[in-house]
Amino acid sequence: MATLQDICVSAAINLLSAFGFLVAFAILRLQPINDRVYFPKWYLKGLRGSPTRSGAMVGNFVNLDWKTYIKFLNWMPAALSMPEPELTDHAGLDSAVYIRIYLLGLKIFVPITFLALVVLVPVNWSGNTLDGIKDLTFSNIDRLSISNVQPGSNRFWVHLAMSYVFSFWTCYALYHEYKTIASMRLRYLASEKRRPDQFTVLVMNIPPDPDESISEHVEHFFCVNHPDHYLMHQVVYNANKLAKVVAKKKSLQNWLVYYQNKHERNPTNRPITKTGFYGLLGKEVDAIDYYTAELEKLSQQEEEEREKVISDPNAVVPAAFVSFKTRWGAAICAQTQQSNNPTIWLTEWAPEPRDVFWDNLSIPYVSLAVRRLLIAVSVFFLIFFFMIPIAFVQSMANIEGIEKNVRFLKPIIEKKVIKSFIQGFLPGIALKIFLILLPTLLMTMSKIEGFTSISALERKSAQKYYFFILVNVFLGSIIAGTAFQQLHKFIHESSGQFTKTIGVSIPMKATFFITYIMVDGWAGIAAEILRMVPLIIFHLKNTFLVKTEQDREQAMDPGSLDFATSEPRIQLYFLLGLVYSVVTPVLLPFIVVFFAFAYMIFRHQIINVYDQKYESAAAFWPDVHRRLIIGLVIAQILLMGLFSTKDVKKSSIILVVQPILTIWFFIFCKGRFESAFKKLSLQDAMVKDTLERATEPNLDLRAYLKDVYVHPVFKDGQMERPVVIDEEESNPLVPTKRNSNRDSEASSEAGASKT
Amino acid sequence: MATLQDICVSAAINLLSAFGFLVAFAILRLQPINDRVYFPKWYLKGLRGSPTRSGAMVGNFVNLDWKTYIKFLNWMPAALSMPEPELTDHAGLDSAVYIRIYLLGLKIFVPITFLALVVLVPVNWSGNTLDGIKDLTFSNIDRLSISNVQPGSNRFWVHLAMSYVFSFWTCYALYHEYKTIASMRLRYLASEKRRPDQFTVLVMNIPPDPDESISEHVEHFFCVNHPDHYLMHQVVYNANKLAKVVAKKKSLQNWLVYYQNKHERNPTNRPITKTGFYGLLGKEVDAIDYYTAELEKLSQQEEEEREKVISDPNAVVPAAFVSFKTRWGAAICAQTQQSNNPTIWLTEWAPEPRDVFWDNLSIPYVSLAVRRLLIAVSVFFLIFFFMIPIAFVQSMANIEGIEKNVRFLKPIIEKKVIKSFIQGFLPGIALKIFLILLPTLLMTMSKIEGFTSISALERKSAQKYYFFILVNVFLGSIIAGTAFQQLHKFIHESSGQFTKTIGVSIPMKATFFITYIMVDGWAGIAAEILRMVPLIIFHLKNTFLVKTEQDREQAMDPGSLDFATSEPRIQLYFLLGLVYSVVTPVLLPFIVVFFAFAYMIFRHQIINVYDQKYESAAAFWPDVHRRLIIGLVIAQILLMGLFSTKDVKKSSIILVVQPILTIWFFIFCKGRFESAFKKLSLQDAMVKDTLERATEPNLDLRAYLKDVYVHPVFKDGQMERPVVIDEEESNPLVPTKRNSNRDSEASSEAGASKT
Repeated sequence: MATLQDICVSAAINLLSAFGFLVAFAILRLQPINDRVYFPKWYLKGLRGSPTRSGAMVGNFVNLDWKTYIKFLNWMPAALSMPEPELTDHAGLDSAVYIRIYLLGLKIFVPITFLALVVLVPVNWSGNTLDGIKDLTFSNIDRLSISNVQPGSNRFWVHLAMSYVFSFWTCYALYHEYKTIASMRLRYLASEKRRPDQFTVLVMNIPPDPDESISEHVEHFFCVNHPDHYLMHQVVYNANKLAKVVAKKKSLQNWLVYYQNKHERNPTNRPITKTGFYGLLGKEVDAIDYYTAELEKLSQQEEEEREKVISDPNAVVPAAFVSFKTRWGAAICAQTQQSNNPTIWLTEWAPEPRDVFWDNLSIPYVSLAVRRLLIAVSVFFLIFFFMIPIAFVQSMANIEGIEKNVRFLKPIIEKKVIKSFIQGFLPGIALKIFLILLPTLLMTMSKIEGFTSISALERKSAQKYYFFILVNVFLGSIIAGTAFQQLHKFIHESSGQFTKTIGVSIPMKATFFITYIMVDGWAGIAAEILRMVPLIIFHLKNTFLVKTEQDREQAMDPGSLDFATSEPRIQLYFLLGLVYSVVTPVLLPFIVVFFAFAYMIFRHQIINVYDQKYESAAAFWPDVHRRLIIGLVIAQILLMGLFSTKDVKKSSIILVVQPILTIWFFIFCKGRFESAFKKLSLQDAMVKDTLERATEPNLDLRAYLKDVYVHPVFKDGQMERPVVIDEEESNPLVPTKRNSNRDSEASSEAGASKT
Repeated sequence: MATLQDICVSAAINLLSAFGFLVAFAILRLQPINDRVYFPKWYLKGLRGSPTRSGAMVGNFVNLDWKTYIKFLNWMPAALSMPEPELTDHAGLDSAVYIRIYLLGLKIFVPITFLALVVLVPVNWSGNTLDGIKDLTFSNIDRLSISNVQPGSNRFWVHLAMSYVFSFWTCYALYHEYKTIASMRLRYLASEKRRPDQFTVLVMNIPPDPDESISEHVEHFFCVNHPDHYLMHQVVYNANKLAKVVAKKKSLQNWLVYYQNKHERNPTNRPITKTGFYGLLGKEVDAIDYYTAELEKLSQQEEEEREKVISDPNAVVPAAFVSFKTRWGAAICAQTQQSNNPTIWLTEWAPEPRDVFWDNLSIPYVSLAVRRLLIAVSVFFLIFFFMIPIAFVQSMANIEGIEKNVRFLKPIIEKKVIKSFIQGFLPGIALKIFLILLPTLLMTMSKIEGFTSISALERKSAQKYYFFILVNVFLGSIIAGTAFQQLHKFIHESSGQFTKTIGVSIPMKATFFITYIMVDGWAGIAAEILRMVPLIIFHLKNTFLVKTEQDREQAMDPGSLDFATSEPRIQLYFLLGLVYSVVTPVLLPFIVVFFAFAYMIFRHQIINVYDQKYESAAAFWPDVHRRLIIGLVIAQILLMGLFSTKDVKKSSIILVVQPILTIWFFIFCKGRFESAFKKLSLQDAMVKDTLERATEPNLDLRAYLKDVYVHPVFKDGQMERPVVIDEEESNPLVPTKRNSNRDSEASSEAGASKT
């Protein structure tokens, strides 16, 4: 068991490494050459140009002004100084609300920490139970924990009371946060400029009609059933194949530019490439000619495909974006049922154009129901049985296994260096690869489930990831063993016994979780600000691909808040804080430091770096709230389990009231606030409509909405930059996928390596 | 343990008693004097007058035509002959769908019974395990059950397969039934005449406004937010006090009539009464004068109260019935959110005027949330701990207790007859009284929960009653012991062990449940048709109160289907059938007989007797469906428990798929059909609106809707009969309560006495 000294050493190491990251960041970000990596948001906003300092050439790449290095931490106050309304304007409500999660962590845990240290630690310290026991399983950390109080002692009433105080305070903070964010969202929606999605409803599962095309059918249906409000509609084309061609073209274009650059630098030598397998195999050809020809071929193919999609009636999927004359009309259509068969003519608010996930617009109702079932079962198996295939791969990948199966490698493996490398590295690598791929896997599952917007996909992936972390990181660390063993225990033990088992092991795991918080929370977050992966990729692109200023613009990868993986990880800290608040209060300061540090760093990142892919106006908050409540209820139940071993009379009856009240509080909050995140009230719609009618009586809404909800590959070339960005974002099959994979890999790598 | 012979004897007795009830019914219903008890529905419809046969005076009371007695069962084919569409017209969709529950029972269990008897019984019979065992705990019924198969035997695969077949068949039947009933409902709603609730929305939680009255506020809000659709509104007065006065007046009127009748029959002797405590205590006065004076006083009081309610602005509660120009407008308002604060301006479809529960229209949102929590907790305690106060009362009520506590009764109690009476009777009476009062108690709880329509109240009471039956009758019979002990077991045993314990005891309880089905199902249902309580009350009223034809009309108590108590009891039969279908197939024929018999009897009753209090167009079906699925899942889980003791390899894994698929099926059905019961589609609303505009272009909707949603006590005297009926039904505090209590007491008495 780790002693207090061990913890201190570990804290020092982690603080140092965090400090190291910060210093590295401070130095790197001052170099003009890295400016686009550390301040891309300002470039995208057009508020910052490429560095054009006077002075020597080298000044364009390296910062020689030594004074700036001294104030290397001055980004911190700068990050905190931007007021929230400005932040919302600058980075969107999603980001502004996201960092409020960290702030909420501070709001909840600072008072709890104070109270716990002042009240509980003295009570525990003077318990003196562990003095007599010369047991190595207790460290001096445990002196400060509930383990130091004698079973049956009256001191436990302090813990019971504090547990209620902490729960009450958490609920109070949660209630106020929900209220604030709901009103922020309503204010944001009310103050917003005109946006196409305010007038538009996504209609899915349009039934086939033998006499009419889908477009005519939609037109007739809405003309009849919304006669005074219907304005226009846009059908959805199945352009997945076309999108693939466009993406392939773009990648070939990159290669062409690469070889052209190479040729320009060395004009005497025409670059050559090979035709097969990423230029590695096949016959040698002149690279520039080859790619030019290939591109021509693809352009033609693209043109054909484009023609085909537009003219072929079968390329229209049974979904459409229907727009209305007023926000009121759209609000009505989105919230009501159109047909008495609830599986056809399904309407919901259209996502923002950037947020639409085009592939999922045409899934029939029954198929959707089956997909949900299959994915639910798969997620269950993934969470509880993921160790089985990994253990299998690990058993295959040991030295003897490889020698047996792949005989010709035997002489190589037998060499000592390689052998030790394989033995040290292979057993972990399967697990590591799995953890790196997990977010992508979960996102793919969410895609199969059939959600129609990227924001919904991220929310659902976050939900899955949260349960994975809950079962495999939290429960898995407390009762050592795989999730499958836990499941077995859960079925074969009584529920009382199960919570007792976990409750009893909680105090013993405090030191482990303190270390975890320092490694994953402190150092991990500090690494986030360094942006190693985007830094390297930017410089690679800059070297090989960039010719013009516009290319450089495209080489920037600002990234974005990865809600699907980072939010569940915050939830783990909330859970740890709530679970240990009564049990081992010394863990709490570590949590508080994490929240404060992360708040600062992410505030800096969303101001200077991240470029949001879409704006959902904080639609994720009900999920965050729900998971926090789940964490609170888990903490309360585990406390019941722990107390049932402490010989405190009536403690179960006193404690069982807590989760009931908490669940009721959840239902109450849901009824009170959730609709602000799901529905637009008719009153608000009417106010905005009336206002708009008064200020812009001659607005041509039809022209405004024309071609907004068109698959990005169909957008014409006029608006050059937005098109490219839309292309990247809305078509996840190709470039985005690579991008987002890379992001999530990077972050999960950071997480996994410390797990 | 009961043997086959015991069961046969019991069956014979119950069949005989059922037969006895039927014969009694056949004789009684042929007497003209009982005509209004057995055919009230036809009187209410105006299709049948008082018997005016030619012949002797006695012929008006007793049927002397002996030929009619011979065909004493001819009501049975008559009850079955009315086709369903006619039945829906005649008795409403609620009743027509209600008896389809019995039909569904037949549809599910007839094929299952056939298959089980043909396949499973031979397999069990030839198992021969019990031959060797000379154990008294097994009866020869068990020879035919799964207990007769050797553990580990391959014969169990037949049971596993049959379990899947049965589950599949049940789901198939449920799916088709849901589909049929959804389309019946849609057809009914579409073909219906114009009804006020089609145009009206109930608006609750109207926020207070300092400058406007509630009525003005509603008017302004809807004029602004539904400008093209808003027509008019009616505010709700808090007339609870007035309603009490009116009810009291009515009861005094009855007494006055009683004494006047008495005086008429015996003109020499003016009747006297006492002024206090129901005419039993206090000073003697002339009854007719006394009641006339009292009535005058009350009339004046009523007038004052009426004046006060109408003129006092505080008597207007923050709720209103808002009517729209079209069904489309009402459909929109009912389905959308009006304000961005989801706790104010809540809208829902207005219930039918008869169905409104006026007391609950003005409960604020937070109070509602608190009430739901309190009632949920109370229901939990009621279900699991109701035995505690009863045991306490029982312990108080034994001979020694009474002698100790009430000393002066000692000499009386010591007498032998009384002593044995108390000893034999008292211990059971507390439980019996509780069971009789239970439906009323549950209804009161539902009222406290704040539902706004009588139909919703009945649905929610049924839900509570179902869980009570499930825990206390079903589980309580299987694992002998109180619900509290079960709860204790459930917490302290593992979930696997718990299902195992129950699963193992299931086959042993088959004979008990067979007896239960015969007593409660066969004889109980046969008693229903006799209508003993209404028969007696009608004759009492007829003797003492009836003077005119109209009085006689009012003395009829047709009663109605008591959904809140009878539906949960049907569910118990479904549950028993599903649980025993694989385990002890010989139970199934008893269930089938119950469903067939009950179907016939209730079809007769809804054709000839019951008068529905409201029409909800089968809004209860989703509840019925959900509870059936709950029963099915319970059966599947208990089968898993049973099989886990039978040494069948992989049986748990094979069986665990069943409940998952069933729950998925439930979610699927919910998505597919439930909205037909909750929402009106805009398409349907538009069709009906258009049709009406074409056929009745000059309809004055405002005049049509005027005063429809007015508290019944305000309705003026023009429409004499409907007013009285509305009064009885919509104000449950007074006469209805007594009626419905009486009904439910009667039925629960019938149920309880056989439990």
